[in-house]
Formats: sequence, C-alpha cells, structure tokens
Amino acid sequence: MVNFRQVLNLLGLLIVGLGAMLAAAAACSAVMMLRGREAERGAFLGLLVAAGASLALGGVLWRATRARFDMLGRREAFVVVAAAWLCGALMGGLPYFVWAWMAPDRAHAFLNPVNCYFEAMSGFTTTGATVLEDVRSIPAGLLLWRAATQWLGGLGIIVLFVAVLPMLGIGGKRLFSLEMPGPAPEGVRPHIRETARVLWLIYLGMTAIEAVALRIAGLSWFDAVCHTFATVATGGFATRTTSIAGFQSAAVEVIVIVFMVLGGVNFALYYDLIRGRRRSVLRNTEVRCYLAFLACAAAAVTIALVSAGRPLVLLDGGEVPATWGNAARHGIFTVVSIQTSTGFALSDFDLWPFLARGILIALMFVGGSAGSTAGGLKVVRIVICCKVIIGEIERAFRPNVVRTVKINRAAIDNSMKLETVAYLLIMFAMFLAGAALVSVFEPASSGCDFIDAGTASAAALFNVGPGLGLVSPAKHYGWMSDASKLVLSLLMAVGRLEFFPFAVLFMPRFWKAA
Amino acid sequence: MVNFRQVLNLLGLLIVGLGAMLAAAAACSAVMMLRGREAERGAFLGLLVAAGASLALGGVLWRATRARFDMLGRREAFVVVAAAWLCGALMGGLPYFVWAWMAPDRAHAFLNPVNCYFEAMSGFTTTGATVLEDVRSIPAGLLLWRAATQWLGGLGIIVLFVAVLPMLGIGGKRLFSLEMPGPAPEGVRPHIRETARVLWLIYLGMTAIEAVALRIAGLSWFDAVCHTFATVATGGFATRTTSIAGFQSAAVEVIVIVFMVLGGVNFALYYDLIRGRRRSVLRNTEVRCYLAFLACAAAAVTIALVSAGRPLVLLDGGEVPATWGNAARHGIFTVVSIQTSTGFALSDFDLWPFLARGILIALMFVGGSAGSTAGGLKVVRIVICCKVIIGEIERAFRPNVVRTVKINRAAIDNSMKLETVAYLLIMFAMFLAGAALVSVFEPASSGCDFIDAGTASAAALFNVGPGLGLVSPAKHYGWMSDASKLVLSLLMAVGRLEFFPFAVLFMPRFWKAA
Repeated sequence: MVNFRQVLNLLGLLIVGLGAMLAAAAACSAVMMLRGREAERGAFLGLLVAAGASLALGGVLWRATRARFDMLGRREAFVVVAAAWLCGALMGGLPYFVWAWMAPDRAHAFLNPVNCYFEAMSGFTTTGATVLEDVRSIPAGLLLWRAATQWLGGLGIIVLFVAVLPMLGIGGKRLFSLEMPGPAPEGVRPHIRETARVLWLIYLGMTAIEAVALRIAGLSWFDAVCHTFATVATGGFATRTTSIAGFQSAAVEVIVIVFMVLGGVNFALYYDLIRGRRRSVLRNTEVRCYLAFLACAAAAVTIALVSAGRPLVLLDGGEVPATWGNAARHGIFTVVSIQTSTGFALSDFDLWPFLARGILIALMFVGGSAGSTAGGLKVVRIVICCKVIIGEIERAFRPNVVRTVKINRAAIDNSMKLETVAYLLIMFAMFLAGAALVSVFEPASSGCDFIDAGTASAAALFNVGPGLGLVSPAKHYGWMSDASKLVLSLLMAVGRLEFFPFAVLFMPRFWKAA
Repeated sequence: MVNFRQVLNLLGLLIVGLGAMLAAAAACSAVMMLRGREAERGAFLGLLVAAGASLALGGVLWRATRARFDMLGRREAFVVVAAAWLCGALMGGLPYFVWAWMAPDRAHAFLNPVNCYFEAMSGFTTTGATVLEDVRSIPAGLLLWRAATQWLGGLGIIVLFVAVLPMLGIGGKRLFSLEMPGPAPEGVRPHIRETARVLWLIYLGMTAIEAVALRIAGLSWFDAVCHTFATVATGGFATRTTSIAGFQSAAVEVIVIVFMVLGGVNFALYYDLIRGRRRSVLRNTEVRCYLAFLACAAAAVTIALVSAGRPLVLLDGGEVPATWGNAARHGIFTVVSIQTSTGFALSDFDLWPFLARGILIALMFVGGSAGSTAGGLKVVRIVICCKVIIGEIERAFRPNVVRTVKINRAAIDNSMKLETVAYLLIMFAMFLAGAALVSVFEPASSGCDFIDAGTASAAALFNVGPGLGLVSPAKHYGWMSDASKLVLSLLMAVGRLEFFPFAVLFMPRFWKAA
C-alpha cells in the first residue's frame, strides 16, 4: 500500500518551498516597483497571491499530515515526484493568471489557465517552450519568475530533494536515484546527503559565475540573471522575443555556449573533479561522446549552411550572408542549444536547408548527458543502444561468442541493456503518440502538418522548446488548442522524469499491497 | 573465412531455378501469342531472353564452382540469401527492360533499368509497389511474370531453399532458420527437409484452392491466377489499375480477404494442423493477437468512416456513400490488406479521415505473423515488446520481483527479449533513415512532404506497397528519382530478410576468420 499520508506531507513541504521562492520573486518585483516601474504592480500582486496561496496550502497540507514516518518507500517516492511536477506547475503558473486577471485590458494569453499551466510546466521541466507571442508583454517580475522556474527545475528535485529532505529526517536515496536520471552514474551513490550538498553548491557556483560573466559582457543584472537561469538549467526562456540574438554580442554568445555545454554534462563528473578524481572524468565514455556529437554536428551544420548559400534570417527579421564565419557562429550556437535541449536561437533555423534541419531533429532525440539538466534520450543510452545493436548483429553469425558491452570501462549487464533499449523504444512510442494526439487536436484548417505536430511532440518530450514549422523559434505555442497544450505539458513532465514515475501510476499492482 | 566458392555455386543454382520459372512464363506468353494476341510477342521475347540469360549465367556460375562442399555455414547462408534477393531482382527485372527496349515507341517507364529493378524487387519481396501509372500498358505475359515474382518470393527462399537445396546434399537448416523469420516457431525445427516439403505443399494447395475459387467467382483464369499469386504471397500486384475494385464483386473480395488473412498466419501452424496438433494452434498467442488486431482495427476504421460521413472514393474515380455496409466492406478489406502487407485497395484510403489513416499506418508497422508471407514488425514481436515494457514498468517499483514473459505458454529468455526489443528499435531507425533519404532525394519542387516520404519508406520496409499522399493506392512510384527508387528497393529487401543478412555484411569481423 502506498502511504498517502507521507506523500501528502512531503508534497505540502515542497509546496511551501515553492511558496518561499514565489515570495522571493515577489520581493524582487517589489524592489523594481519601488524603483518606479509602475507596470510591476501587477506582477508583484500576482507573485504575492501565488506565494500566499502556496505557503497556506502547503503549510496546511504539511501540518495536517504530520506524523513519524518510516524511510521513504520507492512507491511513495514515485507518487511524490509525479505529483510534485504536476502540482508545481499549477502553483507556478498561478502568478501569470492572477496578473492577467487583474490587468486592465484583460486580453492577455495568460487569462487562459491552460496557457499558464503550459508556461509553468515548460519552466519546471527546463523545456523553454512558450505560449507568448511577445515575451515583453509581461512585466519584468513575471519574466524573472519564469526564468527562475527553469532554474528550480534544473537544480531539480534531484538536489532539492536530496539536500533538503534528508535534513528533515526523511530518506532521500530513492528520490535521488529517481532524479539522477539515466544509467546510475558512478561515484554518486555513497553519502547521498553530502553529495547532494556538493551538487547544489556546484550548481550555485555555475550560476554565479555565468551571471557575473554576462554582466561583464554588458548585460543588465536582470538580463544576466534571467539568461543564466535559462542556460545552466538548459531551459531556454529568454527575456526578449529575439532570444539571444537580441544582444548582438559575440561575447554573450560564447558565454552562453560554454554554460549550455557545461549544463549538459553529468553533474557527477563535477563532483568527481572536485574530489580530485580526474581519471574518472577522463575515462568517461559519455562525456567524450557528448562532446564528439556536438563537434561533428556543428561542423556538419556549418558546412550545410555554407553550401546552401542562403542568407541566414535572424529572429528580428534581418539577414546575414552565409559566410563561413556567420555559418559557424550560428551553426555552433544552434547545435549546442538544441542538443543540450536549451532551445535558445540566434536565427530562424526553420528556414535552414534540409540537411541542417534533419541534424537538429536528430540532436533533439539524442540530448545531453545523463545526470545533467539536459533532456533527450541521453548520450549514454544512445551509446549503449549502438553497442547492443552491433552485438546483436555479431550474434547473428557468431551465436556463441559473448562480448560484453562496456561503458566507462565497466560492463553493462543484460538487464540494463534491456532497460536501455526498451527505454528508447518507449520514448519513440511516446513521441509518436504525442505527434498523433496533437495532429488529432489541431484541425487541418490550422495548417498543422506532421512536421509541426512531430517536432512539437519531440521538442516537448525531450525538453528542447522550439521545433520547426509552426513552432519554430520565430513562433510560439499560443495558437494551439488547449487539448494540444495539455498533451504537450504532460509530455514535458513524462520526458523530464523519464517516463516511469508516470507509467507506474497506471499499473494496478502498484496500488496493491506488496 | 566465407567460402565464396560455395556461395557462388548456390547462387548459380538459384539463378538457374529463376531461369526455369522465366522459361515457364515465356511458354505461357507464347501460348497467348499463338492464340492471336499480337501484343504478346514482345513479352514472349523479353521473357525468353531473360530465361536464356538466367539459365546461361546461372549454369556457368554453378558449373565453374562445382566442388564437394561441407554443410552450409551460417556466414555463407547469409551471403547467399542477401545476394539471392539483390541478384534475383536483377534477373527478374530483365524481361521488363527487354520488352520496353524492343517496343516500337520506346517510351515506356521500363526503359529505365532502375524501374525494372524496383518492380522486380517489389515482386520478390511481396511488397507490391509499382512504378507503373497504367498497369495495362504492359502485355499479359509480363503481368503474369510480375504476379509470379510475388508468388516465388512468398513461397520464399524459405521453402525453396529448404525443399530444394537439401536434395542437392547441401544443409538447409540455417537458411531455413533465416527464412522463417521471427522468433523460432515451435515445432518446425526437426526434420527440416520433410517439413519444408509439407510447407511447400500447403502453399501450393492454398494457391490452387484460391485460383479455383476466384475462377468460380467469375474471373478469367488469367486474372484468377495472377490475383491468387498476389494474395497468398500477400504481395498486392493487380492486373488492372483499379486493383480489386475493378471486379466489383463481393464474392471476389471475400475470397481475397480470406486468403490474405490465411497468408498472414504462421505457416508452421498449418503444418501443426495437418499433423493433427490442434492444441498447439489453439494455444498460439500470436494467431489470437493477429486476429484480434484485425478485428479491432476493422471495427475502428468502419466507425471512423461512417462517422466522418464522407463518400468513399473508388479507385476508378466513382463514389459510394459511407453507409454502414459500404464502410464495413471497405474498412475490413483495407485493414486486412494493409496489416497482411498485401496492399490491394478497394478505395483511395488516402482520402479517408485522419483516424482511419492513422490506424492504417500503425498496421503497416505491426504486420502479420512471423513465419508468414506478411511483412511488418510481426505481431509476436509487438506482443513480446509490450510484455517487456510492462515488465520494466513493474521492475521500477518492484526491482526484486522477476516475472517471466510467456509466449505460447513458453517463457522467453532475456536474450530473446533483448533481440526482439532491439529489432524493433533497428526497424524504427531503418524507417527513419529511409524517410530521410527519400526526403533528401526528392526535391521540394516535387511536392514530396514527410507523409509521402515516410509512408513510402514504411510501405517499402514493411513490404506493404502503397502508402499515403503521393504514393497512395490511386498513385504509383514512377515519379520518384532513381536514387529514391534504389533506396526503397533496398529497404524492401532489408525488411523482407529482417535486416541481419544485410547488416552482417558491413561487419569487418564477418569477413575474417572465425
């Protein structure tokens, strides 16, 4: 039996934590308001109401279910994680709705609660897909909160749950193994609590360094912080409709590229580096493949852009010729942005030649490293699957030869092979189901073809953000029906939590006594 | 080391066999010519030249490489099978080319050798995709040969190799296990030679019964035989552009439906039935799932057609209202035709509502039973994968519970689970690669979008024949570039032989000493 009391207690605690973050955002908004930005009043009120509601709801839930609990069970952990993301987006989307409801004209997209839910889920899952046609239509306070949702999501229930909950005497190990997705990263298992503390500090450190770097590169503190949140969490929400292109600064682009790449690396490796285990990093299979994928894809896209010869269309409508320099700049930035599932854009890659778009779609599926803030199938899984397939081909003509598949010089057992290959198949099925549902919900009159529905599904499931066609970086998701947006919201959560926390809920055996 | 002498020897023998079939077709053509059909002269000459060339080439090859061979090795079997399909299509396409080359106007599609290769490969792989805009543009002799290629392919190297080669003192067991695709069908292993003889007789019997039934239903002997070849082999080549719809006969449709369904059943079950093992048939998981899939899909498509309410457009351009009767007739026929990978059509399902088309695409992937003439992933693999995925979900919250996956009341071991899941993943990758290559080779100016390229890839890989859009049943593949047609030809062979015979050829270790 699932211990619902424990589940609700933890959930209450999490909502309180979310309320505290909302209160902090409200405070920032208040400061901006007091400095004379009148438009911030609505944002402040929205954030304040949401903070109050979260603190009250979470507090009541937590107090009402207080008890002495055993170590957190695996089933309870699954329920908490799934519920946390689904409810978190509800509370996190509240300030958007309150603000829109109080606005004088009452015509904003956020007056639709589904849009608010989508935007908040997109943030907490570090997806970065938006329903906003004009990002500047919402006040700075909400932009800050929107950026912060990604940062919270990226920091993840991983560090949040593992660093905070154990201090409350609640076992975090299972949540931790849930939240450090992908095949178990070596060296992170022991001393969970200490590890979590270190991971959190690494994340905080990366955030601070990038924010300062962006400030030095010329951004305002507001832009620097918002884009830092979007980068280290590989989320991709920008504070202007033209995304990173709006700054027209090579320095900013280089900083963002570096931190997107860093955000897509397994955080266990940083932990190892800090602990002085440099060898474990050097022999890591995934990080080498990850960097190799990035380099090859960037080179291929650059060559494709140059040989097509078409000018590159910037997000503000301007054009630059496809010289080697421009192509490399746009190619590298976009490849890194897509493979790390960030979703920032310099130019409208929907207008790129076929080969370049094909590579970008493939990169959406590949994604970053396990144990990182990036989405996708994860590089290590792709590597394992390739090795399994080669092994199967060899077994066809040499059935008696057993060849072990190794990752990081350690053998992968059969059950992990099966798990990995099955996971890829499951995600393909999820992707197809998502594309089919969006196709059903979007009438042919909306002009939504398979590329639109398919890339929307992939961009949500793999937490990338923009797709191609009607959801290209120059466009947004606001035009979709509510049904499609709810499907995509669910896909984001399913992809971010890697399917199982949601799938188990549909198993009758899960709810029965063990 | 692969014994190339043995490979060439076997290949020579196969080409001689093909030549004999070509000679038989030439004889039929000669009879029609002598009965006064002047147009048959070209077909007769084409078939005669191809027969002569095959007999000469195969004979020389066979004699030049004669020797005392050991039992056929696994590697040699792979090479023979792969080469047999690739070369067989070359010889099988020759009569088309010779006929077109000798035609007075020299303007036929078959003047392009790639078209001939595509059409022959489509036949031998029982795909049924055609490059012909007007099927009646070729003489009856070639239509007969075209139908016969499917029958030969459907009979398969399975029975051919297992019934013929052992008589020549060459071991057929491994080829047999190659050619009986899918997880090893129980009960067919022992007494290979005898089993093969029985299978061949079953196939021959089915052919005879259907031909007589179609003749009684009012077709000419020519039409009856050609459509029988296309049905029992689940190929789908018709003798008129309007496919089966041209006969406007419910009796014909029912006969064709019955034999398409029978063609999609594992032939090992017929063997068991004949041997009196009725229980093994009744407890067979796959056949029950196969029939359940057919029934559910037919019901869903019928409901979709009725509720859409649009009239059904026949292939001759006529229309019938979407009454329950018409919808059921077209729905059942099309579902059976697509799931068994036959590809016959009554109406242009490209114009059907979205849901119906979606089901048809899904059925292309599912396909018929292992050990049948149908293509697709095969029902038994889908069942195993579903069970594996449910098992993985349960393992997420009960990691210590081991639950065996059973098919036909027998447990599936881990290595077969991995093989099956990996196979599905491989086929998804092949499908995507095919769709991407076709997209690359078809310029945007041809109006080829993802649905066209994607369903063309699936229809080839899963040996269905028609797809949607530009390759819908009312259309053909003749408009495609040669590069696309070669890609699709290869996909047909890869799908028919289930990937491994081609994949091993790319492994350096395959060619090295064991």
